[in-house]
Amino acid sequence: MTVQQAIAVLDSGVGGLTVVKEVMRQLPREKILYFGDTARTPYGPRAADEVVAFTREIVDYLIQYQPKMIVIACNTATAAALEDIRQRVDLPVIGVINPGARAAIGRTKTGIVGVIGTEGTIKSGAYDLALKRLSPHVEVISRACPAFVPLVEDGNFRSKETSRIVSDSLRNLRDSAMDCLILGCTHYPFLAESISEAMGTEVVLISSAEETAREISTILHGTNELAGRNEMPIHQFFCSGDPKKFQEIAQNWLGEQIRLTPVVWQVPHIGA
Amino acid sequence: MTVQQAIAVLDSGVGGLTVVKEVMRQLPREKILYFGDTARTPYGPRAADEVVAFTREIVDYLIQYQPKMIVIACNTATAAALEDIRQRVDLPVIGVINPGARAAIGRTKTGIVGVIGTEGTIKSGAYDLALKRLSPHVEVISRACPAFVPLVEDGNFRSKETSRIVSDSLRNLRDSAMDCLILGCTHYPFLAESISEAMGTEVVLISSAEETAREISTILHGTNELAGRNEMPIHQFFCSGDPKKFQEIAQNWLGEQIRLTPVVWQVPHIGA
Repeated sequence: MTVQQAIAVLDSGVGGLTVVKEVMRQLPREKILYFGDTARTPYGPRAADEVVAFTREIVDYLIQYQPKMIVIACNTATAAALEDIRQRVDLPVIGVINPGARAAIGRTKTGIVGVIGTEGTIKSGAYDLALKRLSPHVEVISRACPAFVPLVEDGNFRSKETSRIVSDSLRNLRDSAMDCLILGCTHYPFLAESISEAMGTEVVLISSAEETAREISTILHGTNELAGRNEMPIHQFFCSGDPKKFQEIAQNWLGEQIRLTPVVWQVPHIGA
Repeated sequence: MTVQQAIAVLDSGVGGLTVVKEVMRQLPREKILYFGDTARTPYGPRAADEVVAFTREIVDYLIQYQPKMIVIACNTATAAALEDIRQRVDLPVIGVINPGARAAIGRTKTGIVGVIGTEGTIKSGAYDLALKRLSPHVEVISRACPAFVPLVEDGNFRSKETSRIVSDSLRNLRDSAMDCLILGCTHYPFLAESISEAMGTEVVLISSAEETAREISTILHGTNELAGRNEMPIHQFFCSGDPKKFQEIAQNWLGEQIRLTPVVWQVPHIGA
């Protein structure tokens, strides 16, 4: 029997758990290795160089476990470090920006697409580039929402105060003719209810998490590396900060998914 | 300047035009080469061996144009010949079954997925296999709808008679707890309105055409082969049968998409 290789997923904190949840749902046979850099979250306001350095460090750590694929489940890190990591490791490496962009192009009818993300992601222009590379005539309306990640990392994603902050951050966006809005940060699906309330039901929310899980499936299918019929996944979660808080948010978010399979929690000696 | 390589798309007739339309929409810079085997449609009732032989013949023909990818945009041919063609050509070859299966797994909440297709596709069990390979606990309800392809090939996709035939063919399916229905034949999006009426709005229709276009995008992005910024596509359409009827259906279905780019129509000497 060979050892089942995992899909390694990394994020600045708990946001990448939205990708994990979707991978667990869409590919329940896959083993997952997750790293949340909760000690250094948020990445959004950091300089791109620093984000690259952190991402390299985490990838070097995860590589020890011989994963079959690296998923940079953080939009800020994807914008800053995807190309760098692709050149450093000899494995498929995917980010979360292109899957979301592709889904939006597939979905939009007005040709006007909204993107919300961290300051780092929005400033990088990575979504504009990805969207226009696919379809030159698409119009992109972007907005940085720096208040969102701290809300999620605090586990505070269903309060009235949260709804108010979300609604304030998205003010005026609903007046545009956009018909889909990319949640360009993997933390944002935690706030999907409030975002949807603020935007109205006519705007389709595109979760880069959900779309990324699907592309993982497409790519592993293409390379014939999907987990086999009899494989039994064990999931491993690492975080660099307070493990109690991380575990609480993960258990709350992943709910039934992690009741079905054994889970290991660990705190590595990096990022502290 | 290098010559732009095309995406080659083949089908038993006009059904693959639903994939073409989506590729044109999602990847407007891509050059497309289309072959509709209208002289030998439908493939659905034919023996698998015969479908493999026809598919090989068409692929050999298209290969002369040095495409960058082969898309078997016919579910019957995908079920019968995908693996065979993959082994014969040194190019990415994708079919339409896995993309639809993947989308259904992403979409279903009840875990019960419907599939409609030709007799060949349904009898092959290819969707069951693809769905269960991804998610072992999904329940699949399949039905062959042999009346549908001839309706579409006749260009008869919006009449009352068509609605009646569609509604009869899908009788009882709406009583199940399925929450999404895979249109497991690329001809079926032509009949989407009637199918949706028959199934009710709670059932999400999954078009293998739309999903395949997205996977084409994912795969070409992964291999760094998406058309570049300044490329201007010319589309080429071949059919083995009556070119007038084919052209009429294609122009009707593709509408504005082919008004934007130059198109060449040809009748090759095969399949006649």
